Amino acid sequence: MLIEVGISARHVHLSRKDIDILFGPNYQLSVFKDLKQLGQYAANEKVELIGPKCGLNSVRILGPERKKTQVELSATDCIKIGIPVVLRDSGDHKDTPSVKLIGPVGSIELEGGVIVASRHIHVSTETSIKEGINNGDMLCAKITGEREVIFGKVLARVDETFVDELHLDTDEANASFVKNNQKVEVYRCQK
Amino acid sequence: MLIEVGISARHVHLSRKDIDILFGPNYQLSVFKDLKQLGQYAANEKVELIGPKCGLNSVRILGPERKKTQVELSATDCIKIGIPVVLRDSGDHKDTPSVKLIGPVGSIELEGGVIVASRHIHVSTETSIKEGINNGDMLCAKITGEREVIFGKVLARVDETFVDELHLDTDEANASFVKNNQKVEVYRCQK
Repeated sequence: MLIEVGISARHVHLSRKDIDILFGPNYQLSVFKDLKQLGQYAANEKVELIGPKCGLNSVRILGPERKKTQVELSATDCIKIGIPVVLRDSGDHKDTPSVKLIGPVGSIELEGGVIVASRHIHVSTETSIKEGINNGDMLCAKITGEREVIFGKVLARVDETFVDELHLDTDEANASFVKNNQKVEVYRCQK
Repeated sequence: MLIEVGISARHVHLSRKDIDILFGPNYQLSVFKDLKQLGQYAANEKVELIGPKCGLNSVRILGPERKKTQVELSATDCIKIGIPVVLRDSGDHKDTPSVKLIGPVGSIELEGGVIVASRHIHVSTETSIKEGINNGDMLCAKITGEREVIFGKVLARVDETFVDELHLDTDEANASFVKNNQKVEVYRCQK
């Protein structure tokens, strides 16, 4: 099947508690741009991120609020700022490194929650039935073109609210020259 | 067959004329570390590189001297400093972007020569005969592990002076988590 690619640049998801600290009590994030997944948006708000070696300016917040704050960086970013590169599915913060976040009102030393996100596809329930894909399946995605790549271990996540979309990060995009919204072939990997 | 990976970080090859300008007349590059390919070395010398958006400090020179100056960057670097991402085989400078180089003695505005290097393997004549590989063959390379990737369009370059080695850049390494000197499977891609 063909699925559109969404390339994730570095970003931060914030908990209510951390928004209060960084932006002020009861501060409400504002929508810069809606994302493809229902209810998800790039916020106007940005934070500064400080690692042991250096920092990253103007890292965008993605809304809405989450239960736990999560920072998603590329491996390139992690190496640059001096933290370990730890690959995790979204929400899995076991043994993940930390950074400091600085907002306009306050700052936080996180306790973990900085991940390089595992590649994954969001699949609508409708598409999952049509294509015979189950939640948790591991698939392959082929990027054709001058820098051809087949990505393995693409986790399928099925939900009735999901819009079909393959999420890759900037390292994966730069290694394969895939573009945002490009349609790519996703299929069961051959043994 | 299994081939060792060499990960290329950003670097610059300099012509004699450009060494004269950047480091002074008849300046000789000095060896910081020998590379796997015969006669190739990382030099102690570094330059600053200036793009339209920003610069990159301390970009290492690789020796020995070449006929034409060539700058090899990752796509991530190109986007950061604000130049087009142009994929080329080493030595092919047709329609490639330019940067300014600053050395301790002088500076140069290049006229092209900044490339993102096409992935390729160096193959010894001995290995090429044993494995039935011809100069110019396009192969696949599989990186196993938690961020599994199959790289397509890996150009085989055969020469009697070559040591078997798969060259990838930092974007490709960060997208696949392959490590320097890791042995990976290289084979004819299936249709």
